[in-house]
Amino acid sequence: MNTTQKRKVYVQDVTLRDGNQALKKPWTIREKEVVFDLLVDLNVDGIEIGFPSSNQTEFDATKLLAARAPKSISIAALTRANRNEIQTTWEALQHAANPRMHIVFPVSAFAIENVLKISYEQVLEKIYDSVSYARTLVGKDIQIQFSGEHFGDAMENLDFATKAFLTSIEAGANIINLPNTVERYRPMLFVDMVKHVVSRTPEGIRVSVHAHNDLGMATATTVESFYAGASQIEVALNGLGERAGNTNLYETAIALHQCGEDVGIRFHRIYPTAKRISELTNIPIGEKTPVIGEDIFSHRSGIHQDGVAKTVGKKKGAYRTFTPEFVGRNDEETISFTNQSGARAIRFLFEKEGISMREEEIQELFHKAKEVSSREGNREIGIEELSLWRKEIQPTADSGVL
Amino acid sequence: MNTTQKRKVYVQDVTLRDGNQALKKPWTIREKEVVFDLLVDLNVDGIEIGFPSSNQTEFDATKLLAARAPKSISIAALTRANRNEIQTTWEALQHAANPRMHIVFPVSAFAIENVLKISYEQVLEKIYDSVSYARTLVGKDIQIQFSGEHFGDAMENLDFATKAFLTSIEAGANIINLPNTVERYRPMLFVDMVKHVVSRTPEGIRVSVHAHNDLGMATATTVESFYAGASQIEVALNGLGERAGNTNLYETAIALHQCGEDVGIRFHRIYPTAKRISELTNIPIGEKTPVIGEDIFSHRSGIHQDGVAKTVGKKKGAYRTFTPEFVGRNDEETISFTNQSGARAIRFLFEKEGISMREEEIQELFHKAKEVSSREGNREIGIEELSLWRKEIQPTADSGVL
Repeated sequence: MNTTQKRKVYVQDVTLRDGNQALKKPWTIREKEVVFDLLVDLNVDGIEIGFPSSNQTEFDATKLLAARAPKSISIAALTRANRNEIQTTWEALQHAANPRMHIVFPVSAFAIENVLKISYEQVLEKIYDSVSYARTLVGKDIQIQFSGEHFGDAMENLDFATKAFLTSIEAGANIINLPNTVERYRPMLFVDMVKHVVSRTPEGIRVSVHAHNDLGMATATTVESFYAGASQIEVALNGLGERAGNTNLYETAIALHQCGEDVGIRFHRIYPTAKRISELTNIPIGEKTPVIGEDIFSHRSGIHQDGVAKTVGKKKGAYRTFTPEFVGRNDEETISFTNQSGARAIRFLFEKEGISMREEEIQELFHKAKEVSSREGNREIGIEELSLWRKEIQPTADSGVL
Repeated sequence: MNTTQKRKVYVQDVTLRDGNQALKKPWTIREKEVVFDLLVDLNVDGIEIGFPSSNQTEFDATKLLAARAPKSISIAALTRANRNEIQTTWEALQHAANPRMHIVFPVSAFAIENVLKISYEQVLEKIYDSVSYARTLVGKDIQIQFSGEHFGDAMENLDFATKAFLTSIEAGANIINLPNTVERYRPMLFVDMVKHVVSRTPEGIRVSVHAHNDLGMATATTVESFYAGASQIEVALNGLGERAGNTNLYETAIALHQCGEDVGIRFHRIYPTAKRISELTNIPIGEKTPVIGEDIFSHRSGIHQDGVAKTVGKKKGAYRTFTPEFVGRNDEETISFTNQSGARAIRFLFEKEGISMREEEIQELFHKAKEVSSREGNREIGIEELSLWRKEIQPTADSGVL
């Protein structure tokens, strides 16, 4: 495979399946519809809508969402590798204009020996049997994705895991998905395993990755896997998913975009989507969370404030990767004054209000603000307070900003 | 440099400087002392305690913490690259048993041209002048660290940036720190730049990295930089720091430990430390935050619950990287029942209470629980409720668990 050739990033969202199954209170069908519409608005390429064989709610939701989906978006449903469940899955999924059967089975030595407790030969048989059964059921034109669960833990049996993927392809799979089901080591060990599989995968088969965030590196694992030849990335809104979650859609999409890739996401939908998902899950967005956190466009040290002020109108900012508007935020890049701040913060805060001041006046306010902040537990000093002090210091000054 | 040789990871914490400067309400001296003691308990190798030339509170805090520090921990203070500020910094820092002067100056073309607005020659002169002045001031045995701010944005002028680091070494620096001041691209582009500098760095000079988390990949960037030859990693408690924060200490330390490195951190102190830092910053810990989030040891899908139950006593778990106890948590790996769960969850919940049941009884409770959860908005069903139902179904059963 030629990995230097420019490839479109295929964004496969798993919020409605992996995200939903990990919620304290999984979504109702009505809530799933809201999430589905948010994903369509974001313009993802594929949506995994559920796990229909797991319960009646999931079955009904899969059926409903499948029928609602536009042809342009591929619609997947997950199933375990057995004929009954594959059949149930297809009953719900076949209503989609562009369906994708997604079959999962473990491939790591640890899971095979401790959870499955069957022979390696039986694993391959199970994969071949289930995928070829699915192929017969859905016909030749429908996509089948095979996931080798615990792939990231299959270092010791990588050749077997590769063989398992190749077996699924022989049986009729078009897409093979390599999950880092549990994040145990570091990204490049996983990425090297992805490279190994990619190099042995026939032309025309898409390689996908699906990472979990147990050690906080799922975004990096996914981004770097793209450069190892995986063209589908499985991601979730707000990084939802089992335990510490799945790969975060927003971070991954922006990182790949920043590296010049064609991601196809409507970036300005990110912030409104994240807020809505936070409401729908009752999981607040951390104030320092990348991309969507309330506090990430604030600058409080003097050195940073100087850099921000000097590059504020530029496309590239000294201390930002993207503008708030790029991800659909209304907030501006803000400079706040604490005792860590420089005099430039004072100038910046007034200039934002359309007021320019003499340097001596700024210095006077700066020293007062620094002293008050230090004395009063290093608190923030806002433009309102600064404006009041300015009036006290210079009572004839324009008081329009108040 | 031989990067295959086993090296100790040098953990340099910057919570009290980069973390503190980004707080809405920077810490008081008293609060800084609490954080300092938490870091000593964690057994980090070095602590950057402040930016003493920036204001009086910082100066006083630096002086106090420097005097408090044990000889075993290196104590750094940050300064800009000018003689006055270096002198002020040394006045506060010299009280440490093991002090480290840390000088920062930008090295990226963008910052030099848009923020500094001086020539490249002048940048090198400024670095040489400030570092050699510091060397004269502190004497030959004290460590000097030089940081080339915006190194991660110096792709287009990497040779110049490398020259800037080599200039600092000629002038007397022992440690060079390569910051990804703003995360703009992907980890391996940065890591390749680190490799470039490492390969040109003389023996005996320590290479350090300092990453920010704007795209959510700081942990990965830092972990992978270690394998590119950087032996010092700059990290922060709870990932505090400007904007989306600095590299998270907990995630990075555990990832390197999982990869077999000697990190030296007292891992069981992680959770109590994180809780205390959350109180001291008034920044809640997200429930799905890796390592420390409240919800990361819960398992809600049937497939996962099956794997957890089959590996619950083992050192390695099917769906966990480390145990709760490893990071000082009291919570157990929990299985919760929702309509996404399997019958095994029911068995597991009762077995935890010391009750084993016949398969038919489990199946009966399973179907009831699944039906009630689905009907009532997919809510969780706990052991209390299950035990009550069990009594209703089989009134003679042992009711000891109630």
